[in-house]
Amino acid sequence: MEELTGNVLVAQSGGPTAVINASLAGVITEALNHDCIEEIYGGLNGIEGILNEQLIDLAEESQQTVRGLRYTPSSALGTCRFKLAKESDYARILEVFKAHNIRFFFYIGGNDSQDTAAKIAKYAADHGYEMRAIGVPKTIDNDLPMTDHCPGYGSVVKYLCATIRELALDHEAMGNHDLVSIVEVMGRNAGWIAAGTAIAKRRNQLEDAPHIILLPEVAFNAEYFLSQVQECLKKNKYCLVVASEGLADANGNYVAAADATDSFGHSQLGGVGDFLQNLVSKNLPGVKARSCKPGHAQRAAAHCSSLTDSNEAFLCGQAAVKAAIEGHSGKMVALVRGDTDKYTCETTLVDINDVANGVKHFPENWIGEDKISITYQFNKYILPLLQGEVQVPYENGMPAYVRLSQVKVAPQLDPYRAS
Amino acid sequence: MEELTGNVLVAQSGGPTAVINASLAGVITEALNHDCIEEIYGGLNGIEGILNEQLIDLAEESQQTVRGLRYTPSSALGTCRFKLAKESDYARILEVFKAHNIRFFFYIGGNDSQDTAAKIAKYAADHGYEMRAIGVPKTIDNDLPMTDHCPGYGSVVKYLCATIRELALDHEAMGNHDLVSIVEVMGRNAGWIAAGTAIAKRRNQLEDAPHIILLPEVAFNAEYFLSQVQECLKKNKYCLVVASEGLADANGNYVAAADATDSFGHSQLGGVGDFLQNLVSKNLPGVKARSCKPGHAQRAAAHCSSLTDSNEAFLCGQAAVKAAIEGHSGKMVALVRGDTDKYTCETTLVDINDVANGVKHFPENWIGEDKISITYQFNKYILPLLQGEVQVPYENGMPAYVRLSQVKVAPQLDPYRAS
Repeated sequence: MEELTGNVLVAQSGGPTAVINASLAGVITEALNHDCIEEIYGGLNGIEGILNEQLIDLAEESQQTVRGLRYTPSSALGTCRFKLAKESDYARILEVFKAHNIRFFFYIGGNDSQDTAAKIAKYAADHGYEMRAIGVPKTIDNDLPMTDHCPGYGSVVKYLCATIRELALDHEAMGNHDLVSIVEVMGRNAGWIAAGTAIAKRRNQLEDAPHIILLPEVAFNAEYFLSQVQECLKKNKYCLVVASEGLADANGNYVAAADATDSFGHSQLGGVGDFLQNLVSKNLPGVKARSCKPGHAQRAAAHCSSLTDSNEAFLCGQAAVKAAIEGHSGKMVALVRGDTDKYTCETTLVDINDVANGVKHFPENWIGEDKISITYQFNKYILPLLQGEVQVPYENGMPAYVRLSQVKVAPQLDPYRAS
Repeated sequence: MEELTGNVLVAQSGGPTAVINASLAGVITEALNHDCIEEIYGGLNGIEGILNEQLIDLAEESQQTVRGLRYTPSSALGTCRFKLAKESDYARILEVFKAHNIRFFFYIGGNDSQDTAAKIAKYAADHGYEMRAIGVPKTIDNDLPMTDHCPGYGSVVKYLCATIRELALDHEAMGNHDLVSIVEVMGRNAGWIAAGTAIAKRRNQLEDAPHIILLPEVAFNAEYFLSQVQECLKKNKYCLVVASEGLADANGNYVAAADATDSFGHSQLGGVGDFLQNLVSKNLPGVKARSCKPGHAQRAAAHCSSLTDSNEAFLCGQAAVKAAIEGHSGKMVALVRGDTDKYTCETTLVDINDVANGVKHFPENWIGEDKISITYQFNKYILPLLQGEVQVPYENGMPAYVRLSQVKVAPQLDPYRAS
């Protein structure tokens, strides 16, 4: 294969995670190893910033900053939830790529972002511009098809498990009250995050928190839920419930839907914890109900993130660069688990079109017969993803995260006016 | 002074914290050093368990468990919010003390608990039973009078500051939206916790989160709040608001009061985040509002707790034992800050009656002129309390907290029937 020479552009998209910057660090670190790569640019605010030619020179960042990306949460390049829709948008992207000799494009993101990367690659090919686009997976939701798991998932589960273990100790200490404690967790369409917290049980027994797990994959039935809460309170003095924000009834309606939708048409959720708290308070006299909602903090909680997750995120960034240099395009890096008892994980490449806009639901055979528990078989899947602790340096008693210095690349084009 | 010989009883009360078990470890460790102490008993579930003669033998716990208490959150002995009211309750407590030769009583807790300890000491003295009671301070609220600060406070602030720094990175990354992000924190009557998060600002500047801090000490005015949010959104793309659960209007009414009250008659709070989120959504078109609520997780977050706080909590437990052996009673251990530039902290003894049922509000001169910021002078107070990180061991990717084996002490009395 003829060697392609030119510049790298890397960008981040969708909701931030604790380890999406580790993938960015992987891209930068690997790109520096290859002579065919001249400049390493970052696009600010995902595809939206690239349309506006907002590029920065990542080679100008200090080594210390690049190392710091491995423990710094959120998207250091900024992110967006913008969807390319118009032909003129694609034309503009190609113009920007040409103006800066971008030959290698890496887009770190979830379903929608993989779709965007695939379309850009196709548009460039259709217009005779040689370039390679590789998607780097990222989502706390763990719902991308074609990959064993997604960078970002292990860390959010690790943080929530620590939180649930701590809440359990708190509730155990409070004597003589029937308490229902609800933890609302993220997960719009897939229950991976809520299900993941099952591993916080110290033994796989009924008396350990979390006692009830409510997934979007299981239609919510208020009567059944209340009966299970009462059942639990017969055996324990408290009942800890983990509920996905995307909890829906048998008709598919979110139990706590708000009016607003985001720019992809997804309903903006929240309030499942409040909903369940009220449900319990109104229907179970004498039972105290409490809820907590880590909210956006759960996806950014690098102070309690998984080293395995962070290392795999870095590996995905590296693998993307290697793949592009080898000549691949229109692919996403995916994680493949080894089939030995000892956990191993490697990367592979999958077709972006097989990933884009698909949703990998939590498997039915891992949902317990009672529909509120997770089967033992899931433990083997989730446990390796939580192993190891990312060491975050502290300064003045607080995590010392890094920020990019963001040295701008001079624009070559006129400002973009979307037609 | 004649040496008093007998057994120790230690108990915990009120809401758990990340470091209340460190104080328990301090009591146990110090008690082992003194020949005048024969047995070290723990009372389960605070004074409520003592009434029921639920005692355990703490000398039976392994050294590893006692060491583990220094990083294990919540109240390992269990806790209660029970208030001794009737003469017969005091008589029963004295009976239990006599039956088990309890001569040294240590009660680790907040305002209400200090009051209880003082009353028990007085009742015993009035009835000619020689014993010594020393209170050990504990409260995340930091609102006990007579002490520079309270064990538990530094850790909750450290955890919330890490969370706010992470949320800030998350929000910074999201492009082009006006976002109001509300973090509801604990603090019923005093704003110490909310105010403490001001130190999360990276520089003492307007553009750093948290942008707006709402204290119970400042009457909430919706119009003013909304104008300050708008002001902030002119300069920043997001506005992070930290709000005390005890936020109240000019008439002293909680802005988000629920119906329930606890057994001390305190209103049970919650929902300030939701309240503010709705206020913003309804009144500022085009602005997105989000809230998160760490809830009970914040007071149990030992995985991100302050080593200074944990060490001081341990020290308070030790000091209580030393004081009792020296002959003191009816006192509480308090923390005194040295007046040098380099932070030092020692213990002293204060009269429990000066502490009980008092509330130390956040000082007015540390509240900014705009009523939504904290002055620079507060930094010097709070910063030392967050220093150092408690190292929690992890097992299977999750914090490995300890539990007491709880070897029961055989009851000597008939079961208690409250008259």
